[in-house]
Amino acid sequence: MRLYELGETGLLRRIESILADREVASALTAEATLVVGIGDDAAAWSVHGSNVSETLTTDTMVDNIHFSNANMSWRDVGWRSMVANLSDIAAMGGVPSLALVTLGLPGSTLVEDVEDVYKGLVDACRAYEVTIAGGDLVTSPTFFISITMSGLQSGEMLLRSSANVGDLVAVTGPLGLSRGGLEVLSRGDTGRDEYAQRLVEAHRHPKPRLPEGRMLVQGGVRAALDVSDGLVGDLKKMMLASNLAANIIAKNVKIDPALNAIYGTSAIDLALNGGEDYELLFAAPYKTIEQIKTVLPHVNIVGEVVAGLPGIVTVKHDQGETIHDGRFGWEHFRQ
Amino acid sequence: MRLYELGETGLLRRIESILADREVASALTAEATLVVGIGDDAAAWSVHGSNVSETLTTDTMVDNIHFSNANMSWRDVGWRSMVANLSDIAAMGGVPSLALVTLGLPGSTLVEDVEDVYKGLVDACRAYEVTIAGGDLVTSPTFFISITMSGLQSGEMLLRSSANVGDLVAVTGPLGLSRGGLEVLSRGDTGRDEYAQRLVEAHRHPKPRLPEGRMLVQGGVRAALDVSDGLVGDLKKMMLASNLAANIIAKNVKIDPALNAIYGTSAIDLALNGGEDYELLFAAPYKTIEQIKTVLPHVNIVGEVVAGLPGIVTVKHDQGETIHDGRFGWEHFRQ
Repeated sequence: MRLYELGETGLLRRIESILADREVASALTAEATLVVGIGDDAAAWSVHGSNVSETLTTDTMVDNIHFSNANMSWRDVGWRSMVANLSDIAAMGGVPSLALVTLGLPGSTLVEDVEDVYKGLVDACRAYEVTIAGGDLVTSPTFFISITMSGLQSGEMLLRSSANVGDLVAVTGPLGLSRGGLEVLSRGDTGRDEYAQRLVEAHRHPKPRLPEGRMLVQGGVRAALDVSDGLVGDLKKMMLASNLAANIIAKNVKIDPALNAIYGTSAIDLALNGGEDYELLFAAPYKTIEQIKTVLPHVNIVGEVVAGLPGIVTVKHDQGETIHDGRFGWEHFRQ
Repeated sequence: MRLYELGETGLLRRIESILADREVASALTAEATLVVGIGDDAAAWSVHGSNVSETLTTDTMVDNIHFSNANMSWRDVGWRSMVANLSDIAAMGGVPSLALVTLGLPGSTLVEDVEDVYKGLVDACRAYEVTIAGGDLVTSPTFFISITMSGLQSGEMLLRSSANVGDLVAVTGPLGLSRGGLEVLSRGDTGRDEYAQRLVEAHRHPKPRLPEGRMLVQGGVRAALDVSDGLVGDLKKMMLASNLAANIIAKNVKIDPALNAIYGTSAIDLALNGGEDYELLFAAPYKTIEQIKTVLPHVNIVGEVVAGLPGIVTVKHDQGETIHDGRFGWEHFRQ
């Protein structure tokens, strides 16, 4: 069977079954304890004798699959690939520490382009206080960039599996802007007006919600992930991990004025399904969220966690409901 | 300028200069201290309040660049990519703990092949007690596998920069077998005889020297790295990091009987320049090495560390000397 017939979810299941058949005791257990394994934004463990937990995450971007240099500069490509990892640390409620950067490079690559990628990486490192501590440079027919990032945190972690029935579902800020910016770019509209520029900037230069992640932890939130595949798709992942279902109340999803001005009635689709805004999606009791709104005023309650088939997300529109099953919003390998 | 004109070493210098221009304070400093940054086999840091140091390393293999499925099964590909990372942990004297596995996969890939890669990965995880704690699966026109591995260690680390004048240079076992096996395979000779099979096995199924790394640390060795690019090339790296030079005494390099039987007088070239044997190359005083030989009898003293231009390695043959400058043995991107 070819991969495009099976899809990412199917492949993940097969891999998990190979791993489960051959589970091994890790040397980790002697000096540290694994807290989170496969299935969350990052792996996490705690070292014995220390009250600090550590997280480790990795994210890879491939040329013409995850980005196109036609739509963004190489420097933006560097920024975005670092941000994708920073966002995973934010989604655990951690503080980033070290990054390892691997580049796969065709021999014909312009050296100046590689330097620009590094400048973008370092821009993000400076903005969010991460150190590039190593990596790998390899020859490859396809350009790709793979980053691994470690984070440190004292106290609790934000996990996908911690949602409870009765929790409300909220996000830390507006959704759909990055995808809206990509569509603007695809139409060649980059400089049209201030709104278009705002969307394009959101696409090219997303910001990881690191302070927001820390504030969620400190405010008592326990269930969160980052919106990288779209609100509906990522909420499904949280519900699958928590063995619960959720409803999204479409009219409660705040639409950013820029998205509204350019996309009108289809703005809601971008907000529900657009990815890579890197806002944090979280679930918590109403009182906890109200308290958090005093420090994070852009927090927007968009739905609720309910009992039901694990992973089922229902979008309640005024004109009816749309039911989404447990499949992810964005699935690799499918044709 | 194109990358194939500049080469890997030149690119590394440019990247280091971008990183140096923009050095940032890491959040790491609040709760941990960076012990080793760019330039060794792995990055390393220690968490405050714990006597355990941690290491992080990454290694990437690209289809048709670092391996060919014509020469090895997908299961062997999985094994080898895990071993490349395990060997970096061994070269620091550490104990492996967690691995993150990223696969770049064309949609047309056979699912069974991906499963075989994972079986090979898990074989190595079981053999060396590592846990796969996460990773990433991405669509890519080229198959690649990128692994990041963390390790833990109490006590000292093996660093490339710790060699001293007067140290002798030694390796933990025979060299050139993996490269010899690759040549055997390229000639279609796989089943010829026991010797050929031994070389092919060394190529397909290399072993990381994890117990050897721990023994070197405990025996008082401080300078080491793994032989992934060939004895001469890797010794150059150690000498560059230590700001010293070294001599290799060619007649002291023990030649494995299998290599001797198949390659005769050219066996020494494979032993000097073949890569991916994953033996450890180390430098230490004579007395330290003699003591270590009592527990690691295959240790072979092959040269000496001398004062001189950093990175210059001189191979002393009976018929004269060959001088190698600071350039690496295997350099990516060059055509």
